[in-house]
Amino acid sequence: MPNDSQKNAPAAPRPSSAPAQPPPPPREERRRPWAQLKYFTFQPAIFPRLLGAVSPDAKPGDLVTVYDKAGYPLGAGLYNPCAKIVLRVVAHGADAAGGDAGEEYFEQAIRRAVELRRDLFKLDESTDAYRLINSDGDGLSGLTIDRYADTLFCDVYSFGIAQRLPRWLPLLHELAGTKFARVHVDHDIGSLEGIKPSVFNDTNAAAPRRVKIRENGIRHEVDFAEGHKTGFFCDQRENRRALARFTKGARVLDLCSYTGGFSLSAKITGGADDVTAVDLDEAAIAQAKRNANLNQARIKFVHADAFAYARQMQTNGEKWDVVVLDPPKFIFTRDESGNWEGRQKYEDLNQLAISLVKPGGIFVTCSCSGLLSLEDFEQHVIKAAHRLNRRLQFFDRTGPGPDHPVYSNCLDSRYLKVLWSRVV
Amino acid sequence: MPNDSQKNAPAAPRPSSAPAQPPPPPREERRRPWAQLKYFTFQPAIFPRLLGAVSPDAKPGDLVTVYDKAGYPLGAGLYNPCAKIVLRVVAHGADAAGGDAGEEYFEQAIRRAVELRRDLFKLDESTDAYRLINSDGDGLSGLTIDRYADTLFCDVYSFGIAQRLPRWLPLLHELAGTKFARVHVDHDIGSLEGIKPSVFNDTNAAAPRRVKIRENGIRHEVDFAEGHKTGFFCDQRENRRALARFTKGARVLDLCSYTGGFSLSAKITGGADDVTAVDLDEAAIAQAKRNANLNQARIKFVHADAFAYARQMQTNGEKWDVVVLDPPKFIFTRDESGNWEGRQKYEDLNQLAISLVKPGGIFVTCSCSGLLSLEDFEQHVIKAAHRLNRRLQFFDRTGPGPDHPVYSNCLDSRYLKVLWSRVV
Repeated sequence: MPNDSQKNAPAAPRPSSAPAQPPPPPREERRRPWAQLKYFTFQPAIFPRLLGAVSPDAKPGDLVTVYDKAGYPLGAGLYNPCAKIVLRVVAHGADAAGGDAGEEYFEQAIRRAVELRRDLFKLDESTDAYRLINSDGDGLSGLTIDRYADTLFCDVYSFGIAQRLPRWLPLLHELAGTKFARVHVDHDIGSLEGIKPSVFNDTNAAAPRRVKIRENGIRHEVDFAEGHKTGFFCDQRENRRALARFTKGARVLDLCSYTGGFSLSAKITGGADDVTAVDLDEAAIAQAKRNANLNQARIKFVHADAFAYARQMQTNGEKWDVVVLDPPKFIFTRDESGNWEGRQKYEDLNQLAISLVKPGGIFVTCSCSGLLSLEDFEQHVIKAAHRLNRRLQFFDRTGPGPDHPVYSNCLDSRYLKVLWSRVV
Repeated sequence: MPNDSQKNAPAAPRPSSAPAQPPPPPREERRRPWAQLKYFTFQPAIFPRLLGAVSPDAKPGDLVTVYDKAGYPLGAGLYNPCAKIVLRVVAHGADAAGGDAGEEYFEQAIRRAVELRRDLFKLDESTDAYRLINSDGDGLSGLTIDRYADTLFCDVYSFGIAQRLPRWLPLLHELAGTKFARVHVDHDIGSLEGIKPSVFNDTNAAAPRRVKIRENGIRHEVDFAEGHKTGFFCDQRENRRALARFTKGARVLDLCSYTGGFSLSAKITGGADDVTAVDLDEAAIAQAKRNANLNQARIKFVHADAFAYARQMQTNGEKWDVVVLDPPKFIFTRDESGNWEGRQKYEDLNQLAISLVKPGGIFVTCSCSGLLSLEDFEQHVIKAAHRLNRRLQFFDRTGPGPDHPVYSNCLDSRYLKVLWSRVV
């Protein structure tokens, strides 16, 4: 029977009020290969402790039919006994088939994902850089693809996906209107999952090392050479655009500016008078300078630690009309002390940043730590403001753009949150 | 000393690392009239149990200087011993003066509030209906003002505000470019606070009974005759606009349509093929029809209970491309059983609504219950979907427009949340 007792847990597949249903099919009539869960869950990521029996013919990378604890068909998923996540459920529903018959699911999922970005959100109207496939958020657990102009940047972290990706690339290019692909496999995940990155050598060799993209009229260079980091995150697109509303003639400070996305938007779209971008990552600052040159925008770049820089500016009594704070992830672990340390960093850096905002100025603060909830993040920011005896007038709370959707059975994949306020 | 131990509570005024400060001024040197708090808090609403001594010269409606528990100046607030909220702190900071000297605070707060809407958000570019003053969210506890074309609709629930409003109206008209005002005082709050609504008789008599506004190119009639309810809520403006992105050629169902805001946006801005608006409130449906006529838009109006209508459509096997669900407040009380009942209503109505969405269709669901958090609301919606064995692909979470800001010391005033998803 469904277990509805756990608060905040998604409900079990069948409502308790459902009419009596026929008994589950006997094991020998199950669609092969198959895997059975030990618990009722709609989560896509199945760890070994959640997995029950598996049909003996199931091989690594197979699309298996998934049966629930009671033996009813639940969905289909990619199986890999070597991996940390031994089963990645990609589709739910009794009709979601495994085996060869189910392979068409992937084509449908890819079409649906591209349709969301191109037809529904019409992202091409404002940019040629967006997330095309968002892993669990598109029912394609283990695969993220960012589209940068004519090149797809694929990040693969599942053996079953790596096996199939070469077959999918022609379809992806056709749907997205792209020509090249860069496939990245994290070294550790690759060895754990048993993915041979060399499979993608030819594909990668044919792809450009760098491309130029244009987002809301601003050009950026994307450099694939550094592996996972391309120097450009699509997730802040809408927030970069929104910032520009507040920067006309303003003095803007962009703390943890990375490759200058917020700074360029403040300057070019928003018409800021004076923009200072601060980052500790030398390569990011170098890329940010190249991006500023590409757009002939004058921005003051400072290669410095945000804490140290903000402290110095506090001492100097400097103030800005608009301050943006978009630090790297500070929280990497659920364990209490590591978590606490990260939270303190958020609080301290936010306090420093708020102290640099003129009365009546705008403060935009971000967190990309998935382990910190929106509410907790907000509380830390409020503490920081109230310690300074200042109040924040929040007028919006946003997340990543709509090309980063999240499935209702996998809210854990949320990470980016942005708080917008006027400092009073 | 500041009490920081309480999790999720705003920090106390002074950081523990602050340098030793001089002792608080003796009572006789306090700025009169004054009131002293019994606890450290930044909350604007001070209930009797939070209030300590008050200077004997403090009269109802006075702007008093507020001293914290330790006797340091904390801010300024409106005092009313007859009211439920005996002190409404409008400004924090040692320099926030009470008494006659502090009256200019209100003028500044009004200017700041209007500036936010007109200069920063440039709302006039898209509408002539917006919230001009959002009570605690603008440091003006006890006053909300919505601007509808040339008329200000003022809702007053503090004696101190009612006393001063006649003096502020000329400034408000000057800043907003309006001519008339309608002042509404809730009967119960009015008698509790000691507000004489007759003070505003002349003002109200001079104001029009109805006005026409235009939001994102769509005309609406606003009827002041029914007191508190004007038939038009500004808070959903950005969400009405956002909905239109998804309704081109679509079949749209607007459940709990009220006066048709979402329906009109779907039809006129979005180019929906077929829109059905359902509401139980006969007056609202009548107003919605007048609004549709004003815009020469063809919308199918159904006067029915949303639960009953959705159940019937479920039975009939009807499906829509886009379903919007914006029910009235279902949760009115913190007490467990009343709260539970409201939550069940959300879950049931969402389940019905989701069952009417075509696979791949869009589902937009709202809650305006301030006592239901965003996270809890989302969990109820997810339960509803998972019971139907369907998944939601969330691509946005929004709130009211930026003309409904919230102060960091008064997050309780948040209420509207909207979840955007594709149903898979």
